[in-house]
Order: sequence, then structure tokens, then C-alpha cells
Amino acid sequence: MHGLFPRKNNDMTELYDTINTLIDEKKIGELHRLFHDMPAADIAELLTEFDDDKLLLLFRVLPKEAAADVFVMMDTDQMEELIGAFSDRELTALIEDMYLDDAVDVIEEMPANVAERVLSRASAETRREINALLKYPHDSAGSLLTTEYVRFYPDTTVAGAFEVIRRTGIDKETVYTCYVTDRQRHLVGVISARTLMLADMDDVVGDIMEQNVISVSTLDDKEFVANQLQKYDFLALPVVDSEDRMIGIVTVDDAIDVIVDEYSEDIEIMAAITPTDKPYLKQSVFSIWKNRIPWLLLLMISATFTGMIISSFEEALAAQVALTAFIPMLMDTGGNSGSQASVTVIRGISLDEIEFSDLFRVMWKELRISFLCGISLAAATFIKIMLVDNLLMRSGVSMTVAAVVCLTLFFTVVCAKLIGCAMPLLAKKLGFDPAVMASPFITTIVDAVSLLLYFCFASAILGL
Amino acid sequence: MHGLFPRKNNDMTELYDTINTLIDEKKIGELHRLFHDMPAADIAELLTEFDDDKLLLLFRVLPKEAAADVFVMMDTDQMEELIGAFSDRELTALIEDMYLDDAVDVIEEMPANVAERVLSRASAETRREINALLKYPHDSAGSLLTTEYVRFYPDTTVAGAFEVIRRTGIDKETVYTCYVTDRQRHLVGVISARTLMLADMDDVVGDIMEQNVISVSTLDDKEFVANQLQKYDFLALPVVDSEDRMIGIVTVDDAIDVIVDEYSEDIEIMAAITPTDKPYLKQSVFSIWKNRIPWLLLLMISATFTGMIISSFEEALAAQVALTAFIPMLMDTGGNSGSQASVTVIRGISLDEIEFSDLFRVMWKELRISFLCGISLAAATFIKIMLVDNLLMRSGVSMTVAAVVCLTLFFTVVCAKLIGCAMPLLAKKLGFDPAVMASPFITTIVDAVSLLLYFCFASAILGL
Repeated sequence: MHGLFPRKNNDMTELYDTINTLIDEKKIGELHRLFHDMPAADIAELLTEFDDDKLLLLFRVLPKEAAADVFVMMDTDQMEELIGAFSDRELTALIEDMYLDDAVDVIEEMPANVAERVLSRASAETRREINALLKYPHDSAGSLLTTEYVRFYPDTTVAGAFEVIRRTGIDKETVYTCYVTDRQRHLVGVISARTLMLADMDDVVGDIMEQNVISVSTLDDKEFVANQLQKYDFLALPVVDSEDRMIGIVTVDDAIDVIVDEYSEDIEIMAAITPTDKPYLKQSVFSIWKNRIPWLLLLMISATFTGMIISSFEEALAAQVALTAFIPMLMDTGGNSGSQASVTVIRGISLDEIEFSDLFRVMWKELRISFLCGISLAAATFIKIMLVDNLLMRSGVSMTVAAVVCLTLFFTVVCAKLIGCAMPLLAKKLGFDPAVMASPFITTIVDAVSLLLYFCFASAILGL
Repeated sequence: MHGLFPRKNNDMTELYDTINTLIDEKKIGELHRLFHDMPAADIAELLTEFDDDKLLLLFRVLPKEAAADVFVMMDTDQMEELIGAFSDRELTALIEDMYLDDAVDVIEEMPANVAERVLSRASAETRREINALLKYPHDSAGSLLTTEYVRFYPDTTVAGAFEVIRRTGIDKETVYTCYVTDRQRHLVGVISARTLMLADMDDVVGDIMEQNVISVSTLDDKEFVANQLQKYDFLALPVVDSEDRMIGIVTVDDAIDVIVDEYSEDIEIMAAITPTDKPYLKQSVFSIWKNRIPWLLLLMISATFTGMIISSFEEALAAQVALTAFIPMLMDTGGNSGSQASVTVIRGISLDEIEFSDLFRVMWKELRISFLCGISLAAATFIKIMLVDNLLMRSGVSMTVAAVVCLTLFFTVVCAKLIGCAMPLLAKKLGFDPAVMASPFITTIVDAVSLLLYFCFASAILGL
């Protein structure tokens, strides 16, 4: 009883074949029935597999009430393709059937000329509302909001409230959280459908509503809005303007999307990739290259400084070639220690657990952690050099070289952790995304530090 | 109109001071009023700031209906502290007020003796239900589910359905998605509160319910469940057992928590840290060390292989010391190229965009991307050696050394991207978490590859 619907890829393939056969045999009625009870998300997933001519045919076969839902879940390319193929009348029907926030998302993703055509086909009122929503900055609560919510006045009765829901509810994105405003649209309360259902029909909304409303402002960061929805376990949050008038709501499904997007974005930035919304397999080789190469170049140039440090110690290295063999281990361990600290802090920042004012607390903590890590790693290395390198492999690494390596290792780990934990907080303070300060950048910085330490200790102890 | 409640940290500090004053002045009534309309999430956040004796006092002051909600949002340490201080009667009241899924979470987080005491205080029925839920594996849908949902039979009328909601709804985790089962509890339909509100009172549930129910099984992975809730924009998903009988529901707030947890976990694993649920600032230095040091040691040992490669080419390096200076750049660029590919694939896997059967498609794509990246980087390096190193800094790097470096760079990037994209898919296939194959491990592998390539080209071209 997992529904009739595809959960696994092989079911999808089967369904895909069935649909292809039905198209070839022109059995439109059966196609229509097939789609009739299928969830929009599944239809959208299926449609990605069809090319343009079949896509248009299939889209036209969809049950009218599903078409708008399916459309907003499709790939940008397919949306553009379909819009190009639609008649003006089809386009008007589609845009009027969409929720306003979805319509705004579609328009924002389309090239300017396509977006204009879509807008021009919307009714005057829809166009006005879409244009109002388009004004909000890309990262703001405003960019997520929909103006389709249920609103009562405080003097409405519960019976009256149900009447409002019954009359208008079908077009609202949610009817489960309703808002209470005065005649000037100032938000004065919130009431859940559950409270209404449990109340007497004669009760007055103003008496049973929750008066302490948690709201966000149109310009609040959308990540903050998603965090609030998560923190309070709400299904929707009201959004108010600078004069505290209610503008719309943000619903929990949008919050989940924001969280997932931010997650993908953070991970890409941490791996030194320019973030993108497009699925990997849908991106062209050239566009992936474009998202990766600037960072590789930047990091490569930074790494040449490390090379310069080595160059200036060329003579020392020539005199003591054994030193060179430890360079990769020192650089890698430094890089790994630093990224552990930086990623921990980046994660703490994005979960709102750490902020800039914690800088010294964090550094003090990392200092103690790095002492423990540094001592453990140096001890392990010393034992390994003595037992494995010298006893087993007879490489004849002298005690003083071993001392240089272990000392360097210890101080590299300490510096790496301190740099690693401080950089994301400093980046945040300076207005950059802390995620930039993950492994690749920390590694590049720590490489230089570890080599400098190495050669200093080598000069001092080995007298090179 | 952001509510009366703290949104920013300075508001929190102010509130904290007020509460401390009220405690000192023993103004319990005012404390009670202060908490009365405060959301549970905010109370829990505030309580983290108080130490044990004040914590118990404050918790006892909380409005009865908020106490259970606040409790489940607190830190594990504070929960344990409070449970230790509660009387048996307080404990019984608390456990009976909690939603079952929350009670299960609390019990799972407590040490065995504390968990036993909590269970022993629950009523026989609650204890039976909690024990049933405790059986499910940690990562399964069963571990998320609550048995508190609204259920109708197909022959119930809409009026009867509202009656059920009114009679039992107050104790249910959600009343917005209700389920329809036959007398043997087999799931036959789903109906939203919205549909009920828009229907006639005389309609029969069986006629207006949605028959194509999407459900999950108790043993499905919890990440899969969260993805389904996100994909279909549902507020809840029904969970069925192996005989298709309805067991409970998973609600959207749990799905968000799963998504956020998985995100943190992935990021920690990618940075070679054993994942933990605890906030950074709450963890002891020793426990952070314990989560980091095994990975650092493991990676350090792997890095010594790279050192061995260098050792075996010591003579070549001594003869051509200029070669050493390029080692960091080659290693870093290889590592960065590899992590870009691996992280892209890891992200694709966790978003369900890529699976093992795409292996060759992904490798073919990365091969082309790596050609573009490799050529760009090699060209940039060649120009840089000629213009900056030789013209500006007169380092006298010979044309053949430059050729060796650029060739190595190109092939390192190609190998790095291929290894980087293949390893997460192989890890997944072998049943490991693909996130393990992020930067640190890829870097270690690619380091060895890049040095081997370097010395091979150097031997062949420079005749060392």
C-alpha cells in the first residue's frame, strides 16, 4: 500500500514506457486517466524524461487542476520550452491557476522576454500583485511570501470564520493558520484551524485567538525566516511591512526548500565551487567548468607562495634531503586540522550557535583542543619514525630530524586550528559568507604556515 | 509587531536579567505571568542560561500546558538534571503530557538508569506504546513516528469526522491530515481538514477522501521519509507495517529536523570529524578531541605513503632542486580539483539526483570537465613560470622543467576529477556514507597520484 505511484526507479521506467506506448497509439483518454490521480511531484519527475514535442502533448493532457502544480515543479528549461509553445489563452489560464509565490519564482527564473510575455498574459490584478512581490530582494522573506492567506477581523464569530474559509479557502495556500487583523490590516492575532474546530460556533475570534504573534518583516533574511519556522514548529509565519501591516505569509514547504538550498549552497562553497541550483547531470560541461575554474586558479596562485617558501630554502633541502619526504604529511595534517576547526565553526554559525562575539571563547577552546591533537599526532609521528622508518625500513632519520618534524607538526596543528576557527568568524564579520573559509582556503594558508615553521625549526635545530 | 518575544540576543540578555531579579525577589506570580504567553521554543532557549537550582525552580513555575513542550526542546544535560530532581508524581505528569515520539526521543537520549526511571513512571498504556516505538532502528521511519493521529472509517460522515476531531483532536499531533482505514486498520484513504471544511456535513468520508495514499514503511530510511514529505509538500505522511496496517504518522516538523541533522552530519563527515548532535560550545575539549583525532591519525598515516614516494625520488630531487618548489602547488591543485568533483557527486547523491548506475555518465562528464580545467590551469601555470618566475624573479626555470610541471598538472587534474567523482559512488555502493569521500580522503589519495605522475614525467623528460 505505497500508493499506485512510482517510488523506485524501475517503476518510473515502466511508467515511462507505458506512456510512450500510449502516445504512439494516440490513446489520449487513457493518458488522461493515468495522470488523473498521480501526485503533481511524480508527474513533474516523469515529464523530465520526455523531449519537447511529447512534453507539450503530455502537458496538455494533464487534468486542469494539476497543470499549474506540475508546471512549477519542472526544470527551468522545460518551463521555458512550454511557455514558448503555449497559446496566449493557455498561458493566461496557467498563470492565474498558480499560487502567487510560485508565479513569482517562475518569472524570476525566465529570461526577460519570456517573463514579460508571461506577465502580459496575467490579469491586471494578478500582474499588480506579482509586480509587488518581484520588488523584494532575492534573499528576503518578501521573496518567499504569498499573499493568499485567510484573514479575519477580531469580531468575526467562529461560524463566520468557517464561512470565510469555505467561501475563499479553496484558493488559499493554507487555511490551517489564519490571521486576525484590524481594519487597517495591522496584525493583531493568529488562530489555527484546530482552535476553530475545537471552539463553539458562537465564540468570537478575538476572544480565542493567540495574541502574541510571532512575525517576520519583508526584508528579513530568508534563512532567518526558515529557522524561525523550524524553531517554533509553525506551518506558516506572517510577514509584515515596515508599518506592521500584514503583507502575506511564508509556508513551511518554502522553509524546507530554503533549508535544502542553503545546505547545497554551503557545501558547494566549502568545496570552492560557485553554487548553482541546477542538478549536476543537467548542467553542461562548460557551465560546470565555469563554476569551478576561477576558484582553482585563485587557489593555485595562492599555492605558489608556498612554492616560494620552498624555493628560498632550496639549499637547506639540498643539504638534508630527508626533510622533503615529510612535507606532504605536514601540509596534509595541517590542512586537515584547520578544516576540522573551520567547518565546525561554519556549521555553528549557520545553526546560530556561534557568533562573532564568541571569537575568543572559540579560540581558547580550539587552543586546548589543538594542544591535545598536536601532542597526540607528534607522539604518533615520533614513534612511527623510530619504529617504522628507522627500525623496519632503515631510512636512518636522525633523532634531530625527528625532533624538527614533531615540533613542526605540533605547532602546525596549533596554528591550523586557531586560523581555522578564526577565519570563518572574521569572514562573517566582514560580510562574506563564512563557508568560503572551508578546507581549500584554510589548507592554502596553513600550507604556507607549516612550511615556514618547518624551515625555521630546521634552521634553528639542524643549523642549516 | 514582532511579538513580545526575544528575537535578538540583547533582548534575551534583558529578559535573563529580569528573570534573575524576579527569582531573587521571589516574585513567583510575576514569573508565571512572564512565561504564560511565551512560545515553548523561547522558554527552552532562555532556560539553557540558568544553572541547576534556578532551573528546577523556573521549570516548576512554567504553565502546566507548556512544560512538556519546553522540556523536549532542552539540552540533554538539563533534561537529565531535571529528571533527577523531579518527584515521581512530577515525572508521571510530564511523560503523560508529551507526544509519544518526543517521549521516545527523550528516553533514547538518557542513560539507561534514568530512562528506566522515566519509563517506570509512565502509565501502563503509555509504557506499552513507548516500548513499541523504541523497537524501531535508529535511522528508520519508525524512530520518527507518533501514534497520535486522527483516524476515520470510510462510512463516517463529515459531521461525524468533525465530532471525532472535536472529541480527540486536542491530543493529536496534527488534525490537518486525517487517515481513513478499514476495521483491520488497513490504510484506504487520506483526507485533509481543508477538504472536510469545504465539504457538506452530510458527505461521507469514503466518497470525498483521496484514495491514492502515499505512505512509507516503518523500516524505510528516515532521510527517505523526509525527502518524500518535502517532495510532495505534505504536512504528514502515514507509516504502515509490513502487513500494510497503519502504525502512525511522521509530521513535517520532524522532517525538517531530519534534514537539518543530516546536513550537519554530512558537513562534519566531509571535514573528517565524527558527527555529534551537541552544539560546539557545549562540548568538552576532550570530547571534541575524541571526535577529531582518529581521522587526523588515519589521514596522517595515509600521507606518509606520499612521503615514501618522495623518499624514493630523493636523488632526482637533489639533482633538480627546482622541482621541489612546485610540489605544494601540484598537490593543492590536485586536491582541490578532486574535492570539487567528489563534493558535487556527494551532494547529487544526497539530493537523489545521482545513483550508482550513473557512474559512467558521471565519469564521462568529469573527464570532459577535467580536460577543460586541466588545459586552463596548465596554460596559466606555463605563462606564470615564463613571465613571473623567469622574467620578473629570474629563477631560471628551464623550459623542460616547465613542461614537466604543466604536463603533471594536466594529468593530475584529470586523475583527481575521475577519482573524486568515482569514490563517493563506490563508497555508496559498498554501503559506506559517500560523505566520507570528501576533501580529506580525496586529497590524500590525489597527493600520492600527483607525486607519482610528477616523478614519472621528470624521469622521462629530464632523464633523472
